Amino acid sequence: MKLEELLKMVDHTLLAQGSTWDEIKAICDDGMKYHTASVCIPPHYVKKARDYMGPEMPITTVIGFPNGNTTTATKVFETKDALANGATEIDMVINIGELKAGNYKFVLDEINELKEACGDHILKVIIECCLLTEEEKIRMCEIVTESKADYIKTSTGFSTGGATFEDIKLFARHCGPNTMIKAAGGISSVEDAEKFIELGAKRLGTSRLVKIAKSL
Amino acid sequence: MKLEELLKMVDHTLLAQGSTWDEIKAICDDGMKYHTASVCIPPHYVKKARDYMGPEMPITTVIGFPNGNTTTATKVFETKDALANGATEIDMVINIGELKAGNYKFVLDEINELKEACGDHILKVIIECCLLTEEEKIRMCEIVTESKADYIKTSTGFSTGGATFEDIKLFARHCGPNTMIKAAGGISSVEDAEKFIELGAKRLGTSRLVKIAKSL
Repeated sequence: MKLEELLKMVDHTLLAQGSTWDEIKAICDDGMKYHTASVCIPPHYVKKARDYMGPEMPITTVIGFPNGNTTTATKVFETKDALANGATEIDMVINIGELKAGNYKFVLDEINELKEACGDHILKVIIECCLLTEEEKIRMCEIVTESKADYIKTSTGFSTGGATFEDIKLFARHCGPNTMIKAAGGISSVEDAEKFIELGAKRLGTSRLVKIAKSL
Repeated sequence: MKLEELLKMVDHTLLAQGSTWDEIKAICDDGMKYHTASVCIPPHYVKKARDYMGPEMPITTVIGFPNGNTTTATKVFETKDALANGATEIDMVINIGELKAGNYKFVLDEINELKEACGDHILKVIIECCLLTEEEKIRMCEIVTESKADYIKTSTGFSTGGATFEDIKLFARHCGPNTMIKAAGGISSVEDAEKFIELGAKRLGTSRLVKIAKSL
């Protein structure tokens, strides 16, 4: 697969706590230059990035991130605020504690409330695989498939692990045909990126592929 | 110092991503039993904890947590939502990127907006020491002192390090007399707790002291 084809599937990502606007601006510049699917940046920088890039470049931001245990009301407010600031795609974190307690309806309803706030915008659902059992991952494939969300996503990049080939295989096996897959966290080579795509991912969260493109 | 005196200065804390209500309930039970200053729990569980514990036990929750790079509008909404749900103390995370970019007025104004949302409730300002230079820590002592916030707090417990004796000494040296100090992250023995208090901390964020009390 050509690198430029892979880059079209990348959410070019910088979410570090201490990131400055200059660093986010560089992500925006590179996202536009290398035609990535979007830039993925913290909510605080969405408005500035939209003003800087103009209307066309997609902006992904993150909601209830990275711990997922804010209230649903706050997640909904944060989503609307992000869209009003110019975000076009929303990557939310599920309530992991309610999943672990078996409150699947709560988890599903929260996803659907956020999708309602998103309207036609893409909603990706981060399930933080590294904290889940196999059974919990499968349950989340079923819940995201049943929900109105667009994507299931492996990881925040802020916990104990990132995307694995095994998790993408599991997603591909247990998600319905309308649920797309995003692999995120630790994707660092073209070979790995190709493998994630081959296993079923439609989107990749990483900043490394642009770095590789820049080094060529 | 008697353990029961130390416990009065403890925010008995459980903020893990996957915490279930049963685990949070145990924190509430222990906080009440051992008369800690408060329980410190994720926003999602505040209402349930308030309903469970009744009106008297103080509840601390966390805002913009742990990365601090949500929008000010979301932090304000989240604060009001938390207070409406029964929280009595608010531990906010500063915008670390704006600090690093030298936008001190932004950081100060955000703290004051949150204090305005808090009214008479205690506001603690988490500066995430492990990500800051010495100069940035000193600047934050000055900013929190200048602000209307009540406490400066070392750490979220979700980054690369927790409270250190050196940081509490630095806080004591550079904060004004009206700014109180909370040490959080990694406090695991009575000896450490005493030392943090001796150096100037008025509040400790930990679950370990209650565990020690239970084991006696």
